[in-house]
Amino acid sequence: MPKPGDQIQVKTKDEIFEGILIPSSNKKTLILKLSSGYNIGISNSKIKSIKKLKTIKRITPKTKIKQNKSLPSVSLISTGGTIASKIDYNTGAVKWLMEPHEILSLAPEMSDIVQINKIESPFAIASENMSYQHWKKIAETTARLINKDEAVIITHGTDTLHFTSAALSFMLKNLSKPVILTYSQRSTDRGSTDTNLNLICSSHLAKSNIAEVMLVGHGESSDTYCLANRGTKVRKCHTSLRSTFRPINELPIAKIFPNGSIKILNKKYKKRTDEKVTADTKFEEKVALIKYYPGASPDILDFLTEKKYKGVVIETTGLGHVAVKESKYNWLPSIKKAINAGLTICAAPQTLYGKLNPLVYSPGREISKLGVIYLEDILPETAYVKLGFVLGHTKDSKEIKNQMLTNMSNEFNDRLTEDSFLY
Amino acid sequence: MPKPGDQIQVKTKDEIFEGILIPSSNKKTLILKLSSGYNIGISNSKIKSIKKLKTIKRITPKTKIKQNKSLPSVSLISTGGTIASKIDYNTGAVKWLMEPHEILSLAPEMSDIVQINKIESPFAIASENMSYQHWKKIAETTARLINKDEAVIITHGTDTLHFTSAALSFMLKNLSKPVILTYSQRSTDRGSTDTNLNLICSSHLAKSNIAEVMLVGHGESSDTYCLANRGTKVRKCHTSLRSTFRPINELPIAKIFPNGSIKILNKKYKKRTDEKVTADTKFEEKVALIKYYPGASPDILDFLTEKKYKGVVIETTGLGHVAVKESKYNWLPSIKKAINAGLTICAAPQTLYGKLNPLVYSPGREISKLGVIYLEDILPETAYVKLGFVLGHTKDSKEIKNQMLTNMSNEFNDRLTEDSFLY
Repeated sequence: MPKPGDQIQVKTKDEIFEGILIPSSNKKTLILKLSSGYNIGISNSKIKSIKKLKTIKRITPKTKIKQNKSLPSVSLISTGGTIASKIDYNTGAVKWLMEPHEILSLAPEMSDIVQINKIESPFAIASENMSYQHWKKIAETTARLINKDEAVIITHGTDTLHFTSAALSFMLKNLSKPVILTYSQRSTDRGSTDTNLNLICSSHLAKSNIAEVMLVGHGESSDTYCLANRGTKVRKCHTSLRSTFRPINELPIAKIFPNGSIKILNKKYKKRTDEKVTADTKFEEKVALIKYYPGASPDILDFLTEKKYKGVVIETTGLGHVAVKESKYNWLPSIKKAINAGLTICAAPQTLYGKLNPLVYSPGREISKLGVIYLEDILPETAYVKLGFVLGHTKDSKEIKNQMLTNMSNEFNDRLTEDSFLY
Repeated sequence: MPKPGDQIQVKTKDEIFEGILIPSSNKKTLILKLSSGYNIGISNSKIKSIKKLKTIKRITPKTKIKQNKSLPSVSLISTGGTIASKIDYNTGAVKWLMEPHEILSLAPEMSDIVQINKIESPFAIASENMSYQHWKKIAETTARLINKDEAVIITHGTDTLHFTSAALSFMLKNLSKPVILTYSQRSTDRGSTDTNLNLICSSHLAKSNIAEVMLVGHGESSDTYCLANRGTKVRKCHTSLRSTFRPINELPIAKIFPNGSIKILNKKYKKRTDEKVTADTKFEEKVALIKYYPGASPDILDFLTEKKYKGVVIETTGLGHVAVKESKYNWLPSIKKAINAGLTICAAPQTLYGKLNPLVYSPGREISKLGVIYLEDILPETAYVKLGFVLGHTKDSKEIKNQMLTNMSNEFNDRLTEDSFLY
């Protein structure tokens, strides 16, 4: 008989349901968690047949993971998220219940590829609850572990993973080894989980010569290969597809196949060195990310100025625009007031793809003249993280502008080509 | 000799420049507007040769456009934007100088496809300066003209065109004929302009049986075909590429080739009827669109509540999340306060692609319980427009929720498939 947690198929007279069996307090009803995330109750009297589709392996803290000492040593940092979660069978919702070492059980193949040296879990949270304090903690843990290992693999929730990958890209100095962030987009006890392939490909990449912060996950919705995307040029682009993380304005660094083959797609990466990695985690918290839209009132910018924010990234339209016509929607006076009050205002493209250029249209010129810093082809998310990082390091407006426009971690792509559009 | 406005090639000893000749006040220097948008000055003494690449036709208000009365009659509404603009040769920046009828000169082929009945220009502005008043005006003009014609073609700036297409989708009632929005992503006096193909394909589509609000423009960066995307499911995705408008969570309705061939990609469209089109333009202005990010303070929501906003769309992470943990970043108390004060709060996916589902993770359940309306696979931009439209029609919270979740203009796609991801 199937046990709670098993994936089963239930046939009634008229329908076929597939999902995960959830314990039911009512003996007359069977409860299934469907792949849509919904739970349904099916009256036992209507059930014609039940078939077990997949047994979910349950690994306890006592399960021994074999370790091959001849393999390169890698440490694992578990921070929470779906990859570190299981379904709470009382509510049918997902909870962060997993012990860090259990992550290994999701891809036992890892121990044939690398030797897991340490597993640390500084915290276990859903990634939407993260903030800069968590980025600091992850950066510090990574710097401490990586100097004794060949690489670090970090498991993390998907919702804000691209913010964390950008933060680590700026915070980790003298990076000399691979730092790999990976995830599960689908619950690890579902048949459709992507965990196994993501962890296997991450392990292969950990042995590579690529000393970058990379986000590794499904390249397409089937289990064929993973992409390693640059930490500053990647974004979560789909709420549920396993291939949700896409490169924006840059080709992925590499394609990784589960057999260990790595195909370089983008030669612009740093190679391994002997440098000692350090974490530089100073960060200014009073930074905001806002989006311009037709009818947007500039009063939101006035509010940030009053609240003594230090920096704002505006997701501008097109080549870098907001309303500038004389009307209640004209943003120029509020931009001027904010900059006079000491705020740093940066522009990033709300189109996501492409590069800003304030010089083509006169509104762009007007905004630019007031001192708004145009951040080329940067992602708004990366711009937000970078602004917090830069303002954590200097209060001098010239130096802020200089640093914001310096290509610190390949957040700008000087050779933007069309082949990265909708990759 | 080339005249200002002509596209020329200038060779110096070491380099070759191509761009548009701009009048120079300094006789020793030739000024070129490069395709990057930048102007450069080249000392005449360094120039080895000048070659004219393309003469820009200058059509005056007196140029006669031939009209074939046997062709279907279409009206044109010009609202400004790059398609209605020329370079101001004094500054090298783009200005909105074109007379409405001049748009015809950008695609003289139009008059072999349709008969242009009327050309109206209710205003001529850059689309980043638009707000709901402009959408109203366009909707009213469209409704007035379309009942006497076979279709209406609207030319518009690109920056916020997808907001306008969503607004018209909600505002035009009993739509019984094609309403086509089109644009120029590249300046009309540049060699790389996309205007010609976009206007030709729009004219062909005007004769079709598709009674929908559609956004028509380049399907790929070359001049091969245009896509007709649904007004509520389209977004500007690239700052400069001509194929910038992409369908999100839906296949384009059709592919249009310059020879007039139309290939239907998505059968879900309304066919022509005899209904009289009307404009229902009631709109609530106090609506905002904000984006959640790690470290985002909920004080921005408190501010909107204090400022007596009536509605907010939050671009949530993943399946529909914001921070809910007990900390200064916890959004739950501010959401509760806002809803108690009468604000309608809606969630839309910041991933853009995919569908929200508040039931998978407990944070989603908590937010959902407070009364936040989860708008499935809607675009945040469309959600903002719809919320303003719905709040313009009712103040009753049950009715607001009911209308927000009703599929009014195919803003929801009930049969979301993977083939629309990164289309």
